[in-house]
Amino acid sequence: MTLKREIKKETWKGGTMIYPLPAPMITCGDIDGEYNIITIAWTGIISTDPPRCYISIRPHRYSYEMIRKSGEFILNLTTSKLAFATDWCGVKSGKDVDKFQEMKLTPQRGIEVKAPLIAESPINLECRVFDIQKMGSHDMFLADILRIHATEEYINKETGAFNLNKADPICYSHGKYYSLDKFIGKFGFSVKKKRKKKKGKK
Amino acid sequence: MTLKREIKKETWKGGTMIYPLPAPMITCGDIDGEYNIITIAWTGIISTDPPRCYISIRPHRYSYEMIRKSGEFILNLTTSKLAFATDWCGVKSGKDVDKFQEMKLTPQRGIEVKAPLIAESPINLECRVFDIQKMGSHDMFLADILRIHATEEYINKETGAFNLNKADPICYSHGKYYSLDKFIGKFGFSVKKKRKKKKGKK
Repeated sequence: MTLKREIKKETWKGGTMIYPLPAPMITCGDIDGEYNIITIAWTGIISTDPPRCYISIRPHRYSYEMIRKSGEFILNLTTSKLAFATDWCGVKSGKDVDKFQEMKLTPQRGIEVKAPLIAESPINLECRVFDIQKMGSHDMFLADILRIHATEEYINKETGAFNLNKADPICYSHGKYYSLDKFIGKFGFSVKKKRKKKKGKK
Repeated sequence: MTLKREIKKETWKGGTMIYPLPAPMITCGDIDGEYNIITIAWTGIISTDPPRCYISIRPHRYSYEMIRKSGEFILNLTTSKLAFATDWCGVKSGKDVDKFQEMKLTPQRGIEVKAPLIAESPINLECRVFDIQKMGSHDMFLADILRIHATEEYINKETGAFNLNKADPICYSHGKYYSLDKFIGKFGFSVKKKRKKKKGKK
């Protein structure tokens, strides 16, 4: 066959260029004891029925062992209001800080798993790991989605329909966070030091 | 521990509520022979190094056998300009139509695999399947990302930096497509029949 037109391309070796991605905060541990939050963009749905998802995590991350041992996590969707916490929880380690406390997030009890859901997130998915597979830099945790919690505020009282987009969800695209309306910040913006303005310059 | 405040939640059984998601067009087959396009939201990165991704596909889909037999596919990122084709290629079947032809897309030769890349897409990832796993309704194709093709138009000539966001990428969120700037359409909008206006009404 003949090519109608060629569009000029540059070519590079393989890389992780799938975007835009979700940037959920993953919670793990036990609501009555130790727990943590880690932000993950390497996530997605792997089956509709039964509903199943995965998250890929580097083994050195603090949450890795907590999820491996408990076999449970909660996937909390993120919004513009949660953008600062989303970025911060991806950059900081639970070894050093209590992320719920520092970000003023509310741990709330789920039904199926012991891990706390983030009350401020519009959607929380309770997940139970059924397999862990080594993929290279990351291990993939494959999980059943057992239960959904949806914030009532975004449910239409008459129709019962849930409107996620009313919650102003954000995505992560090539190093930057966007709401579906506007650019929010670059990866790491929550911890970036502001440049001091030089005197005498505007 | 005590809960600071409870946010009212409704709870449902498990479901596939991870959003926003990418909505790449997956190409498969042989550029010199039979080839097809399928739009997939069940996709993501599973490892950074080596760069690896997955796509989940229902076995009855036309592309399923083509990817299974060849062990290859190309993942083409989608943009506002490609939104109509993105939706259409997810709804229609390659059994019935030549999607490249119908959507006026240009198949372009890759380097590592025989499947055609979509020239109009700003990023094309050449992928080789290393495993297929049954997950339920969908089978998960796990693949190495062997090579990236990036449209020159979005590369800064001085710095060499690629600016994906200049290409106006779109995402899929709870049944609707959004650019990172604005709402584009509901799932199926490319095939929806317009309601006829009633006479005498504005």
